[in-house]
Amino acid sequence: MSGSDRLIVIGGVAAGLSAASAARRCRPDMDIQVFEKQPYISYSACGIPFAISGQVSSFRDLIVFTPEEFRRQRQIDIATEHEVTEVFTARRVVRVKNLKTGEIRDMPYRFLVFSTGAVPVIPRIAGLKDMQGVFTVRTLNDGLAVSDYLERVPVKKALIAGSGYLGLEMAEAFARRGIETILAEAREQPLAEMDTYIGQSVLDICRKKNIGFMGSARIDGIEGDGIRIRSAVLSGGSRIDTDILILATGIRPNTELAQRSGIELDDRGAIKINRRMETNIPGVYAAGDCAQTYCSILGKPVYVPLGTTANKQGRIAGKNIGGKNVQFKGVTGTSIVTFFDMEISKTGLTETKAREYGFDPVVKAITHHTKAGYFKDAGQLWIKLTADRRTGRLLGAELAGTDAAKRVNIVSAALSARMSVADLTSLDLCYAPPVSPVWDPLLIAANELLKLLE
Amino acid sequence: MSGSDRLIVIGGVAAGLSAASAARRCRPDMDIQVFEKQPYISYSACGIPFAISGQVSSFRDLIVFTPEEFRRQRQIDIATEHEVTEVFTARRVVRVKNLKTGEIRDMPYRFLVFSTGAVPVIPRIAGLKDMQGVFTVRTLNDGLAVSDYLERVPVKKALIAGSGYLGLEMAEAFARRGIETILAEAREQPLAEMDTYIGQSVLDICRKKNIGFMGSARIDGIEGDGIRIRSAVLSGGSRIDTDILILATGIRPNTELAQRSGIELDDRGAIKINRRMETNIPGVYAAGDCAQTYCSILGKPVYVPLGTTANKQGRIAGKNIGGKNVQFKGVTGTSIVTFFDMEISKTGLTETKAREYGFDPVVKAITHHTKAGYFKDAGQLWIKLTADRRTGRLLGAELAGTDAAKRVNIVSAALSARMSVADLTSLDLCYAPPVSPVWDPLLIAANELLKLLE
Repeated sequence: MSGSDRLIVIGGVAAGLSAASAARRCRPDMDIQVFEKQPYISYSACGIPFAISGQVSSFRDLIVFTPEEFRRQRQIDIATEHEVTEVFTARRVVRVKNLKTGEIRDMPYRFLVFSTGAVPVIPRIAGLKDMQGVFTVRTLNDGLAVSDYLERVPVKKALIAGSGYLGLEMAEAFARRGIETILAEAREQPLAEMDTYIGQSVLDICRKKNIGFMGSARIDGIEGDGIRIRSAVLSGGSRIDTDILILATGIRPNTELAQRSGIELDDRGAIKINRRMETNIPGVYAAGDCAQTYCSILGKPVYVPLGTTANKQGRIAGKNIGGKNVQFKGVTGTSIVTFFDMEISKTGLTETKAREYGFDPVVKAITHHTKAGYFKDAGQLWIKLTADRRTGRLLGAELAGTDAAKRVNIVSAALSARMSVADLTSLDLCYAPPVSPVWDPLLIAANELLKLLE
Repeated sequence: MSGSDRLIVIGGVAAGLSAASAARRCRPDMDIQVFEKQPYISYSACGIPFAISGQVSSFRDLIVFTPEEFRRQRQIDIATEHEVTEVFTARRVVRVKNLKTGEIRDMPYRFLVFSTGAVPVIPRIAGLKDMQGVFTVRTLNDGLAVSDYLERVPVKKALIAGSGYLGLEMAEAFARRGIETILAEAREQPLAEMDTYIGQSVLDICRKKNIGFMGSARIDGIEGDGIRIRSAVLSGGSRIDTDILILATGIRPNTELAQRSGIELDDRGAIKINRRMETNIPGVYAAGDCAQTYCSILGKPVYVPLGTTANKQGRIAGKNIGGKNVQFKGVTGTSIVTFFDMEISKTGLTETKAREYGFDPVVKAITHHTKAGYFKDAGQLWIKLTADRRTGRLLGAELAGTDAAKRVNIVSAALSARMSVADLTSLDLCYAPPVSPVWDPLLIAANELLKLLE
């Protein structure tokens, strides 16, 4: 068995499959092998809350491609339930274990891609072990397990630890199923890394939708009936009855194997890569949530695990492996979450981050209707823009309300082009009364911010 | 009466009022006088079709500010139903006629702004004169006249000459009122300056909504019952029964007065201006639909009359009059129209225009769903991108379908930044399953176009 022209991908998630596919397009003859620990590959992990809520009819709909399709259409061999347990980088060999049979074998490679993704951060909670009804929501298997539990057990009350994007999505999913839901957040507000206005808006919706919110709430332990969870105990001693607990307390790069293999990690534990997606070891690449990404605003590596980035990084890795020479242009860090009718989004640096990175931030927030005001159904959008006082350069935006997605991407493009606030005010945005006011809210915010800079 | 520190604005439309307001912000002490021929100022002309359709409850809702508000809040004097009949640029004096009293007086100025807007192009149609039931839709008065006619006369059938943005909006408005509507278009397709796919999509909607479309149809004459229109006669001789005729056959700059006053016009009849909005005559500025605008893609003047540009140009003129020194950064030519559920939009150069201007256009069109495909209500969006083969530079986009507004502005920002197609592919756009696929349709189109360029 020769590895002289073989690419091995560790992890059948978006980044790895994008790398494999891009390499295949460049190199029709290359041997490409993907190993994935889980039984499923190529699915929309971000879609899981919507399958749980019932907005998406079946978990099966979340699967984009099967291993068979990859084999047939792209001649990419995918072995699921196969775990790579060792990487011998000096000999360019991986050791892989078939989780179904226990069989272990070594396979040589010429190129290796780490796309091992991220794993949930599990907070220290007494009693977690062997208790039914406690779930993370990361893999398709996780989603199926939650769904199965909801079918089997009469779940009337749900508790969600963490109120980031996933926490909010899961709260909405449970609320849509008529389950009495509480969010327990260790910090004071939901989405605490964002402006307090956004946290307040989320709280308003929670109230309307009858979702409980407990700030500064740390879950210390859980108690059950011997089989299943029945309540959670907060650090203050108070007890919350619940039939299910979702741990939505963040993720961290899944890089134990990489570290054991001598691949350099950064202080967040993410694999260090250059803009070609190369690690410190020749022939070894990394892409997606297990790796750093390049921030085009700061001009340096950051850890911003997002599906869009994972796909782009994978493609870059695959092209370089396939003989091209391409560099990742970087991200501005654009993300969005929907919470019922509200879109919450950001791109670039928040005011706090801007200060941390040595800028002198000037900010302006406005609220404006998102189509001509004389339309009765015109929604409201809150926009906060951050700029650098010294240079007038635009640094970031946070948005909450109607049609945030529509505007955040304009800011992202402006950030990629390193536009100033003055540049932003002069953008030629579309106008028709049913889709926007004649001065788009984004331009209104930019004009207001410009006044503070002049 | 001294004009030593007076700004006179001819035309109380968006551009003129923006100029007056911007000048006021810079110069609290300046005497500012606006003359407007029509009885109304500061209204959303673009909103008229939606007031006729009933989507906006009252024409009054379209009015943003009254003259009284301008006087009180900004100390700007606005005289409606006052027509400026002569401008003596050597003496810096305008002659103005009070249309209510017939009184004529001369008034000196230091600065003058032409914001006389555009007027409808009236095709040569026999029998137009003195026939009731024939309307243009440009001013608030026009809209009120149509509305009044619909109240007074039983209108069962409507004919619209022209199928540009206004023609489509009026067709939708009539169809929403249950009126049997026909679009008569001189060219073969609706929106003929756009890609034929868009024309076809419009025709599909016309069929669904029971709106007739006649291509290559020129109205030669109209016939009535002595008072009101009853039918139109096409150049081929065929006759179409109708109770109302809307002329939506384009607009032209309203510049007879400017021309008489020695202001230079371009070959489209638009007032020539530099990027400070100055005409060839010292102290005389122009802004809005009566004037040229600067195309940032071509780096030269074009005539693209749009409300968004009018507002920006007015502001630039006002700031320069107020003592600042600002230049208009130009437009990419972004426009949008909604036709029932479809958004149709473009920015930059179409393939045809690109060729006209000496580029070697490479194009790619795709159709893709605008949120994760597993959402049953995911809409479809068609995107066509145009780039220059030699340089790889992005030149323009045309879009039709769901959420076109969301994407066109990203392209507009990219065009402003003179991005290449490769730059566009690397934009960091937001992703969450309910608002977009993981690869936004725009990125998919850009990636496909990039393949053609590589």
